[in-house]
Amino acid sequence: MNSFLALLESRWNEGHFLCVGLDSDYGKLPQQFKGKPVAAALFEFNREIIKATAPFCAVFKPNMAFYEGYGLDGLSALIETDRFIREQYPMHPIILDAKRADIGNTNNGYVRAAFEVFQAHAITVHPYLGKEALEPFLAKKDRGVIVLCHTSNPGAGEFQELKAGGAELYKTVATKVSREWNYNGNCGLVVGATYPKQLAEVREISGDLPILVPGIGAQGGDLEQTIINGLNSAGEGIIISASRSIIYASSGEDFAQAAAGEARRLEAEIRRIRASMIPGSK
Amino acid sequence: MNSFLALLESRWNEGHFLCVGLDSDYGKLPQQFKGKPVAAALFEFNREIIKATAPFCAVFKPNMAFYEGYGLDGLSALIETDRFIREQYPMHPIILDAKRADIGNTNNGYVRAAFEVFQAHAITVHPYLGKEALEPFLAKKDRGVIVLCHTSNPGAGEFQELKAGGAELYKTVATKVSREWNYNGNCGLVVGATYPKQLAEVREISGDLPILVPGIGAQGGDLEQTIINGLNSAGEGIIISASRSIIYASSGEDFAQAAAGEARRLEAEIRRIRASMIPGSK
Repeated sequence: MNSFLALLESRWNEGHFLCVGLDSDYGKLPQQFKGKPVAAALFEFNREIIKATAPFCAVFKPNMAFYEGYGLDGLSALIETDRFIREQYPMHPIILDAKRADIGNTNNGYVRAAFEVFQAHAITVHPYLGKEALEPFLAKKDRGVIVLCHTSNPGAGEFQELKAGGAELYKTVATKVSREWNYNGNCGLVVGATYPKQLAEVREISGDLPILVPGIGAQGGDLEQTIINGLNSAGEGIIISASRSIIYASSGEDFAQAAAGEARRLEAEIRRIRASMIPGSK
Repeated sequence: MNSFLALLESRWNEGHFLCVGLDSDYGKLPQQFKGKPVAAALFEFNREIIKATAPFCAVFKPNMAFYEGYGLDGLSALIETDRFIREQYPMHPIILDAKRADIGNTNNGYVRAAFEVFQAHAITVHPYLGKEALEPFLAKKDRGVIVLCHTSNPGAGEFQELKAGGAELYKTVATKVSREWNYNGNCGLVVGATYPKQLAEVREISGDLPILVPGIGAQGGDLEQTIINGLNSAGEGIIISASRSIIYASSGEDFAQAAAGEARRLEAEIRRIRASMIPGSK
């Protein structure tokens, strides 16, 4: 199997940096899905969004909360969704945005869930319990472990911006993940697009580590700043994630076309901004 | 419905402080469950453990990782388990040890999962994203929100013991949760029994807040220190959790009896130690 990083780099080399967040909420689906059973509605909506946006993105990122909230129906829709991506778009890695983390061996259950049950290529995790607790994730060489560093929410700074270990906690997390946790070359970091200054700092600290940047679109993160501050020395290294602004671009029958349109528009913007920094880039 | 805290206090008032951790791993079940389908095996094992240990405990605490790792089969066993506790032992609160936390509205999915799908009375959460992100949990007045503070694992200190905000990060978490997050009186903290000094400090900081103390038993936490350092001003306030040492007390046909025996032994120990501190206590 291709490793997460190999797939990701191949998408980057093709000029794809956009991540489509599959935050699919039954209550917000277009009219045509109303009245369908939850599992079928969520899967069919995702399938159409995936088909429409795959040409314009690097990665798909379902967020577990949306599926878990619908119990077994939601989770079975997620399994179907990931299977569909695996079968139809095998070059698109799947990041399971699950924000998991427990102590040592207990994480084996989450590892099995993320990589076997839900067939993801990478997972997001909380750093609070430390490297030793996260070893079951870090040991999976071919899978990505993307650690929350500076999150996109307005109150992210409550702990993340406290000075801890000689620098703000998010910087200390970035330092430790890039220098001590990444012994298998499978780590990444999450920094919200709503914090462009912090993104630049984390890029500085973490070398060429992949950074997942949510918060573009509905959350209001600035795309230009994200690209300028986030690209690594190879002019790559970022996964720019938008969810609601793409998947709910229209609530009408044209929802998939509208999603494609918004993904295409975002990709064109990303290329324009990248090209202004790196002449001749794809 | 009775709130988490009301149920918990009623268990404490009856002299029950033990929490049975339902960390049920299909691969470790007694011989008689081998060959059964996963969902049936996990549920039936849990049911026998619950029946055997309910008289000797305050709380049941299934850890999501063990169920999620078996996909829909595991999660359906968890739903059945929680339904069984609700129906047969309605005075025993259920803490879902899920260690969740996402940004604001996304947490609505986890709130629905924990309290509607899995019917728990309380959930454990990561503090990293801050109070603002966790509002969907904190707003549920009748449900408990138990925040990771100092976890039980050997590497817990990597971030938790860094000085952050004028004190070690775990103390800062304890301060904020007890003074700022607890406006609905529904918060608690997690402190591992493997860190008795830190437990005493968190008790000092957090007043009478409930503290969930895992790490007794297989992880080697000291029971006497846990009780001496953890009890609040009312001589209550702690939930002492053991998992493997109870549920896998025997792998033979007597597994349920052995689990009851171990829970009974732990409860007797807890009573003996408490009585030495608080003469006349139950």
